[in-house]
Amino acid sequence: MSVPRMLTGDRPTGRLHLGHYVGSIANRVALHHRYESYFIIADLHMLTTRNSRDDIAAVSGNAREMVTDILACGVDPGQATFYLQSAIPEVGDLNTLLQNLVTVPRLERVPSVREMARDAGRDEIPYGLLGYPVLQAADILCVKAHVVPVGKDNAAHVEVTREIARRFNHLYGEVFPVPELIMSETPTLVGTDGQAKMSKSRGNAIALSDDAAAVRRKVMGMYTDPNRVRADVPGTVEGNPVFAYHAVFNPDRAQVAEFAARYRAGRIGDVEVKEALAVALNRFLDPIRERRARIEAQPGLVDQVIVEGTERTRERVRATLVEVRRAMGLTAAYQQVRRRAERARRAAAGSA
Amino acid sequence: MSVPRMLTGDRPTGRLHLGHYVGSIANRVALHHRYESYFIIADLHMLTTRNSRDDIAAVSGNAREMVTDILACGVDPGQATFYLQSAIPEVGDLNTLLQNLVTVPRLERVPSVREMARDAGRDEIPYGLLGYPVLQAADILCVKAHVVPVGKDNAAHVEVTREIARRFNHLYGEVFPVPELIMSETPTLVGTDGQAKMSKSRGNAIALSDDAAAVRRKVMGMYTDPNRVRADVPGTVEGNPVFAYHAVFNPDRAQVAEFAARYRAGRIGDVEVKEALAVALNRFLDPIRERRARIEAQPGLVDQVIVEGTERTRERVRATLVEVRRAMGLTAAYQQVRRRAERARRAAAGSA
Repeated sequence: MSVPRMLTGDRPTGRLHLGHYVGSIANRVALHHRYESYFIIADLHMLTTRNSRDDIAAVSGNAREMVTDILACGVDPGQATFYLQSAIPEVGDLNTLLQNLVTVPRLERVPSVREMARDAGRDEIPYGLLGYPVLQAADILCVKAHVVPVGKDNAAHVEVTREIARRFNHLYGEVFPVPELIMSETPTLVGTDGQAKMSKSRGNAIALSDDAAAVRRKVMGMYTDPNRVRADVPGTVEGNPVFAYHAVFNPDRAQVAEFAARYRAGRIGDVEVKEALAVALNRFLDPIRERRARIEAQPGLVDQVIVEGTERTRERVRATLVEVRRAMGLTAAYQQVRRRAERARRAAAGSA
Repeated sequence: MSVPRMLTGDRPTGRLHLGHYVGSIANRVALHHRYESYFIIADLHMLTTRNSRDDIAAVSGNAREMVTDILACGVDPGQATFYLQSAIPEVGDLNTLLQNLVTVPRLERVPSVREMARDAGRDEIPYGLLGYPVLQAADILCVKAHVVPVGKDNAAHVEVTREIARRFNHLYGEVFPVPELIMSETPTLVGTDGQAKMSKSRGNAIALSDDAAAVRRKVMGMYTDPNRVRADVPGTVEGNPVFAYHAVFNPDRAQVAEFAARYRAGRIGDVEVKEALAVALNRFLDPIRERRARIEAQPGLVDQVIVEGTERTRERVRATLVEVRRAMGLTAAYQQVRRRAERARRAAAGSA
């Protein structure tokens, strides 16, 4: 077998932040060299919860920003195929053909569907949102992916893909690899406010594209231990977002351990801990910034990556759909009609 | 406005019978001249309840038989466009784009969805079966139909189409006519066994393609009043299938009235009533047989009708999808990326 294929990707959300890096991008950077890697820009999935013209108008800018960030994090555009989902209509075709291979109660058991509906503030679930895992199956199967990296949040979705692939192969013959899940830790990074998961909409995010000054400013304003009114009050390290970030981004473990001990003993000020964190974060972000600067020095580069990836993926998806329709017998159904019609046309032309 | 468009059609079930004629074909024969008429051969809908390779392998033969019957009934192939749904992948694309414009509870309120699931012997509804009205909306909207003839059984489906069309137009601008329902009586014809609706699978059907001898044989074997052991026993006309057929197919009203009176009085034998019914049915079927003979004298004609109709419809559907993607802003999203990529490519070529 040639190199196995991996599918991964996101809705086009725009600029990524440290939470995205920790939750998924780091893992993809590590994995993508081993596979023929597809990165979907999943704008049709966005339509399940946000489908206004304004939402759609933001797609191209958001896609460009997101892909820029992913490349800046170290994904090699020569080793990865980025594509815009909605620019491949055959995905919708496959989605429709797969719709009968899974039941409504099965989809209702996928935990995240109801969560997503709630997050979107919908009391009634759109039909397409219930079918989110079917469209995701179409995404994964249309490129015949062999592996899909998942965190615990989306493992249930991909399980539906595996069931659909098996069901299809059972009914119509072996067409799809049943994709393997690459389970990984998907650590959640708390926001700078210490209150919730990092998220752009909560304003508690440090973007991968923030400059050094912005990072320092956000770090200096971070939430810490609220009981610590002076540097000589013993502080709490556990659940303290400043220490959470040190744990992830500061490679100087000795410094982090020393800070923690002094913090607990009331022998270090918040400012010193934060200054050191700002330095560590900026050191972590510097290579990302350098790659971004090189990318942005070539205007249109990211757009070229998306266009070339989309055209390449569309070729592959078209080939998959030919195979799918052939396996199901749909191609033969129409071909039989066409052959008889053609014979009749020729016979009529011959006798005329 | 040019001639308004009508969409109608069926799953490819093969040979039609008198029940189909009475229930829908007669109405379509009467209506189709007034519109630009599309007759869908709805094989993707068949997949919601029957999706084995054998089911699909039967599609082309069943489609040919069904279209032959419809043409034989008097639909003018010059005035109607027959098309095979699965040969137009853009329908699946549109189905996917419309999926978020209707909610799950709304679809669960469509009465026939659960009936169809029960009839198909499924205890768990496939996702695509719940979404049957969405795919039907895609069928109707992909040709931008203005009118849809409906009986009481499918009025609720088409109501969903109207809601989806309105929702789409509201979100993205006027693209779709909101189709009007042409409500009609859809009389149900009892089977020759008098026990249930006429249906091929129950073996109680008289096919439109049955020859005169077969019709006579089936009529002579029909269920009548079971209490009538001799011709001089007074019989019951109400609920008696022989009289039900006389009422529909025998234009000699005086004869029918006389038979009914004599039957109630016990002054006519079943054989005489049945012989007259066989004559009436064969007179009704004779022009259909003549048209069928002319059609079958041109082998491949029906296939040509389907192929030409499918190609013509596909052109129209493609045009609709261009309009749909443009209205939603999906075309612009990808075009923006492509334009920037193209500018970058030209700039690189210019500087090289």
